[in-house]
Amino acid sequence: MPEHESPIVTVDIVLLTLEDEQLKVTLMERTKEPFAGRLALPGGYVHTNTDQNGDDAARRIMTTKLGFAPSHMEQLETISGPTRDPRGWSVSIVYVALISREALASHSAIPLHLYPVAALPELAFDHNKIVRRAVERLRSKGTYSTLPCHLLPARFSIPQMHHVFELVLGVPLNRTSFTRKVSEMGILELAGKEPAAGRGRTAAQYRLKEEVSFFHRPLGDGM
Amino acid sequence: MPEHESPIVTVDIVLLTLEDEQLKVTLMERTKEPFAGRLALPGGYVHTNTDQNGDDAARRIMTTKLGFAPSHMEQLETISGPTRDPRGWSVSIVYVALISREALASHSAIPLHLYPVAALPELAFDHNKIVRRAVERLRSKGTYSTLPCHLLPARFSIPQMHHVFELVLGVPLNRTSFTRKVSEMGILELAGKEPAAGRGRTAAQYRLKEEVSFFHRPLGDGM
Repeated sequence: MPEHESPIVTVDIVLLTLEDEQLKVTLMERTKEPFAGRLALPGGYVHTNTDQNGDDAARRIMTTKLGFAPSHMEQLETISGPTRDPRGWSVSIVYVALISREALASHSAIPLHLYPVAALPELAFDHNKIVRRAVERLRSKGTYSTLPCHLLPARFSIPQMHHVFELVLGVPLNRTSFTRKVSEMGILELAGKEPAAGRGRTAAQYRLKEEVSFFHRPLGDGM
Repeated sequence: MPEHESPIVTVDIVLLTLEDEQLKVTLMERTKEPFAGRLALPGGYVHTNTDQNGDDAARRIMTTKLGFAPSHMEQLETISGPTRDPRGWSVSIVYVALISREALASHSAIPLHLYPVAALPELAFDHNKIVRRAVERLRSKGTYSTLPCHLLPARFSIPQMHHVFELVLGVPLNRTSFTRKVSEMGILELAGKEPAAGRGRTAAQYRLKEEVSFFHRPLGDGM
């Protein structure tokens, strides 16, 4: 064993959703020191007596604190250092979860507090930075990835999908190129038709194919 | 503080290069238990008394064990669990570094042991899995990213670049589409011309633009 102190190891989760056309993050008020009374990301210590790995710790923490664990979580990165937590040299394995507002409402057993990522108060620890990093990742991956799809309801139209990508990326996207790109990606399947504006018109509804996930497969998963 | 044991926190580095047309990884023989005598990735404990963060620990470990720290390293992911290290519940913050064989030869102060990723012996801990994950990441990012560029020498021709991408991805890539894609990416600048096969012929040599890096910017970096 090393001659120096062992670091503190925690897991923090950036749970993002879209509400009122804004990207929002779930925050909880801290009840204990350090930073008692300050808003923070849901998170907690790794429990070495029960957790099987970081993913498992993230699921346990979400279930304990929010009443459910999102089906899609991705490791964002691991943040560490001597000054980010007053209790000591600390490591935070950071996860990002994306969920539609609809799914969030149906799953969560406790009232959630959602805050627009564009106007956050000062959070506990370095959580403002962590949220910025998560949003950066979502935006940088957005044009090529399926990440923002996870903010959509289970069934959606292409115009809805286009709108969500525009909101997430914060830029207008050409509708025609977007539709072509989505079709090339081959990630959607037809889920039915819904009545649309205009007499007798319908809009095609889609859903993500089963295998479309952004979750990092855990190491044990068939490797 | 939690009532359970603190995890062990280590950093491991997957240093990849191309040699003899093969993707190879740097391994070192372990001198101590556990797994004494077994090959392993260069790695070590985080030193909470001196390391400023995980990146810093990775650089210190590379400098100590290999005599230099690669300029490009990226966090791959953090692997954790109760059974991966016989010493206890352990966390490994895994980094990937890519370097040309030429740069590796010029930087490294000690003899390096390179092994083809396609034919590794049984390594210490879960290091076989970690190498597979790193290679998967390199391949999945490869077609859209600049990652494999870091395996090239400082100056290279488009045919050389095409060859390296084919080796990394393990599939033939259409030369014309590849050249167009690279041009669209806007990541190269002209570095000069070299004599080429054929009387009086020259081949354009390129280098990566200064700002092309795959290193995750540390949190302190202007956020």
